[in-house]
Amino acid sequence: MGGLVERQIAEAATALHNANKDCAGRCIDMDALVDTMQSTIERKAINVIACYQPVALDLREVIAVLRIANELERIGDLAKNIGKRLGAIGRMRVPRQSLGGIRSMNKLILAQVRDALDSIASRDDTKAVNLWLRDQDVDSLYTSVFRELLTDMMRDPAMITPGVHLVFCAKNMERMADHATNIAEAVYYMVRGETLWQGRPKADETTIFSSKPLDIGAEPAPPEYDPELD
Amino acid sequence: MGGLVERQIAEAATALHNANKDCAGRCIDMDALVDTMQSTIERKAINVIACYQPVALDLREVIAVLRIANELERIGDLAKNIGKRLGAIGRMRVPRQSLGGIRSMNKLILAQVRDALDSIASRDDTKAVNLWLRDQDVDSLYTSVFRELLTDMMRDPAMITPGVHLVFCAKNMERMADHATNIAEAVYYMVRGETLWQGRPKADETTIFSSKPLDIGAEPAPPEYDPELD
Repeated sequence: MGGLVERQIAEAATALHNANKDCAGRCIDMDALVDTMQSTIERKAINVIACYQPVALDLREVIAVLRIANELERIGDLAKNIGKRLGAIGRMRVPRQSLGGIRSMNKLILAQVRDALDSIASRDDTKAVNLWLRDQDVDSLYTSVFRELLTDMMRDPAMITPGVHLVFCAKNMERMADHATNIAEAVYYMVRGETLWQGRPKADETTIFSSKPLDIGAEPAPPEYDPELD
Repeated sequence: MGGLVERQIAEAATALHNANKDCAGRCIDMDALVDTMQSTIERKAINVIACYQPVALDLREVIAVLRIANELERIGDLAKNIGKRLGAIGRMRVPRQSLGGIRSMNKLILAQVRDALDSIASRDDTKAVNLWLRDQDVDSLYTSVFRELLTDMMRDPAMITPGVHLVFCAKNMERMADHATNIAEAVYYMVRGETLWQGRPKADETTIFSSKPLDIGAEPAPPEYDPELD
C-alpha cells in the first residue's frame, strides 16, 4: 500500500509538471486500489484483535497498522486531488516559477513519505522523530510557494484560476507531509508505547493569526501579502 | 468532544462573518482540549481492547469510537484553521456576497455534524445514511462559492489575498462535511457490521477532470471558470 501511494505521488507530480493527462489519469485510477487495500487491512486488523486478542506490543502494532493505513489512504486521496486539479486547470497558462517551488515541495514530500515507510519497516523510532521534525521545512516551502502564487495572480488576472488550483495543489502536498508525520507518530507509539505530539514545530505562516481586526467593508488593504507574527 | 467541536464550528463561523477576533481566538484555543480528548479516548479504547478483549458488536463499538474521535479531531483542526485564517485576512476588505455563500455552507455543515453526533448517540444507521447522502448538497454549495470567489478576485485584484483565504475557509468547511460523512460510515459499521463507502455521490465540481490537455506556456485561457464534465 505504501509503495502504491508513493507511485501515486510521483504520478501526480509528473502530471502537474509535464501537464501529462495520462499520469493524472493513472494517479486517479490508482486511488480505488489504495482505498480497497485500506479497507482490507482494516478488516484484517480487526479480525486479529477479535481472534487473537493481542496485548502490549502486539496490540500496539495492530493499532499502529490501523492508523498507518488510514494515513496512507489520506495521502492517496490528496494525490488523487492533485490529479483531478490538472483537469480543472485544463489548457490554462500556469505560472512557471511557482511550479518550480511546487516541484521542490514534491521532492521533499516524496522523501518524507519514503522515510515514513522505511521507519515502519525497520521499526525505527529515531528515523520517525527526524522526519517528524523535518515537517517544518515543508511548511516553510509551502509558505513561500503560497506567496509566490499570490504575487503571480496579482500581476496577471489570467493566473487567478490556475493560481487558485495550484495553491490547492501546494496545500495538498503540505497536507501529505502532515500525514507522513502522523505515520511517524504511529511508528513512535508502536515502538515506544508513548505519544509524540506535544507541540510539533510549525512553519506554515500562511495562516498566522495577526492582532489586526478584520474590517469587513473597510478601505482595501494594500494588495501585497504580508502575514504578521503576533 | 462532539459538543466541543460543534462549539468550535460555531465560533469559527461567527469569527468569519462578524470579523470577531475573540471568537477566532476561542476557536483556536479550544482545539488543544479537543486534541487532548481524542488522545484520552484513544488510550481508553486501547485499554478496553487490551483488558476486556471485546468481540462482535462490542469490538465494533470500540473501533467505531476510535474512528469517530479521530474524525472529530480533524473537524476541530479545520475549524481552528478557519480561525487562524481570520488572522491572515487581517484588515482586508472581503467580498460580502461570497461570505453569504460561506454562511449557508456553515449552516449546512453544523446540521451535518449535529446529525452525525445524534446518529452516534442513538445508534441510528438510517440517520447516518441520510446525512451521508446529503453531503452532495455541501459539495454543490462549495462549487458555487468557489466560482463566486474566483469571479470576485478577477473583478478586483484587492480581493485576491482575502479571496484565496476564503476559498480555503470554504474548502475547510467542505472537508468538515466529509468528516461528518466518515462519522456516518463509522456509525453504520458499528450498527450493521458492514461498510457504506461504495460510490458516495459527489457534487464538488471544482476539480472535475476535463479532457482538455494542459498547455503550459500556451495562450491564456479565458479567465472565466468553466469546469467540464468528461
